[in-house]
Amino acid sequence: MRLIENWFSERYSENLQLSFRVKDQLLSVRTDFQRIDVFDTYDYGKLLTIDGTVQMSEYDEFVYHEMITMVPYYYVDHKPRSALVIGGGDGGTATRLSQIGIQEITNVEIDTQVVEVSKQFFPHLTSVFDRKGVNLLIQDGIKYLAETKQKFDLIIIDSTDPEGPAEGLFSKSFYENAKKALNPGGVFVTQSGSPYYQPKAIKMAYSGLSGIFSHVKPYTAFIPTYPSGFWSFTLATDSVRPLESNICKPGKYFNRDVLNGSFYLPQFVKELIGI
Amino acid sequence: MRLIENWFSERYSENLQLSFRVKDQLLSVRTDFQRIDVFDTYDYGKLLTIDGTVQMSEYDEFVYHEMITMVPYYYVDHKPRSALVIGGGDGGTATRLSQIGIQEITNVEIDTQVVEVSKQFFPHLTSVFDRKGVNLLIQDGIKYLAETKQKFDLIIIDSTDPEGPAEGLFSKSFYENAKKALNPGGVFVTQSGSPYYQPKAIKMAYSGLSGIFSHVKPYTAFIPTYPSGFWSFTLATDSVRPLESNICKPGKYFNRDVLNGSFYLPQFVKELIGI
Repeated sequence: MRLIENWFSERYSENLQLSFRVKDQLLSVRTDFQRIDVFDTYDYGKLLTIDGTVQMSEYDEFVYHEMITMVPYYYVDHKPRSALVIGGGDGGTATRLSQIGIQEITNVEIDTQVVEVSKQFFPHLTSVFDRKGVNLLIQDGIKYLAETKQKFDLIIIDSTDPEGPAEGLFSKSFYENAKKALNPGGVFVTQSGSPYYQPKAIKMAYSGLSGIFSHVKPYTAFIPTYPSGFWSFTLATDSVRPLESNICKPGKYFNRDVLNGSFYLPQFVKELIGI
Repeated sequence: MRLIENWFSERYSENLQLSFRVKDQLLSVRTDFQRIDVFDTYDYGKLLTIDGTVQMSEYDEFVYHEMITMVPYYYVDHKPRSALVIGGGDGGTATRLSQIGIQEITNVEIDTQVVEVSKQFFPHLTSVFDRKGVNLLIQDGIKYLAETKQKFDLIIIDSTDPEGPAEGLFSKSFYENAKKALNPGGVFVTQSGSPYYQPKAIKMAYSGLSGIFSHVKPYTAFIPTYPSGFWSFTLATDSVRPLESNICKPGKYFNRDVLNGSFYLPQFVKELIGI
């Protein structure tokens, strides 16, 4: 008997793709904003994709979620208590924030279906939304940030890439509104794509934030299920304190070495953003 | 008319593969040691594979070759003049050594066909073998190192993974012979695989070298065409000098930041090798 093999492939370009053999496709839904699929893969467990791009896998989500929360956490110039997450409807970022001790979390996700799908397939990540102090809002994060009077110690942009609905999350006006919504000494961070395949994202983030914050620091991490395996984040703040030596609890990826080392950029990335 | 698409896929496991769309397969040859293929890819230019695994692409070889030469260069406690390369029949490592100023290079490659194929498709890398001071030997590197009376400032193991012919390049007896062939203050470095998909390589390198050298320091780099995009090297020396601040000329990937930052390991890698 010849078995049928099922594969999900993400095309990084017309000419390159990473393919995951899947046991089953668990769901496919077209929402008002995007197409969401969930696959049960052999090597990475459950895999969530949006418009054909990998958002999260069960087995390597720890890298992305630790790096988008724990690095900025240690750059706030006081013990951070409150955070705003824009995007992140899968709950992974809010979960990690809660684990590192941030109790007041506002999570603004534009697409209610991302939350619903994640509740079904990643309940260990979405359960954070039921916790006291965690406030999930289904609305446009750009509009929310333009109108809110609340202030936060941390603002985290856990978005898709700067094409389509997420493009406005990489604009100067958005960054200005983010700055107004930060407490003094607070820290802003955005995912900023693969420097190798999506140079636009880190360039937009770095140049857009540089006019607005006094310290803009891109950092990187290795994420095997993302294009090229090499991912960037861009952190911005007006107040860099010296890091204390004894505060870092390691995660599965993050540790004190990573906190320092992730800011050291390869030459082609420095040239890309002009530093 | 329906066009035929040709793809080369490297399987990272039974359930995961990276695929390159190719204009043409330029060569396929089975040698006494392995199978060698060369593809002309759309996104990465010419691609050299051995036994179905990517060895080198035209467009991203700079990362691997800079990192396997420039990092150890700056750890030699004097200006290095001589280097031994084992493997590296494509000429990429010897080329980079020559560019950073090392004149005396002995390159020991087991498979003459790797050199012949590379001469045909990567002549800009193999031309180093014609240079004065560069000595190419076609022989078993393990045997060479067991018998040589020569000594070197740098020994670089630019091999395939520790399965099949390269397994002996990850053994303790090999590392002991390497130490005997180093000048005082010299540095040994080996590629040690993807910590994510090939944990065996970095574990063997780290534990094997630790009993023999007083300083063993793994470091990593992002290489988009290698499994997971995350690659490790392991450096070993008996004499770590403080690095001078003014000696680093950047490459396309390497720079002073990378020299420092690449030694900062994610937590799962530290746990893998037990540090």
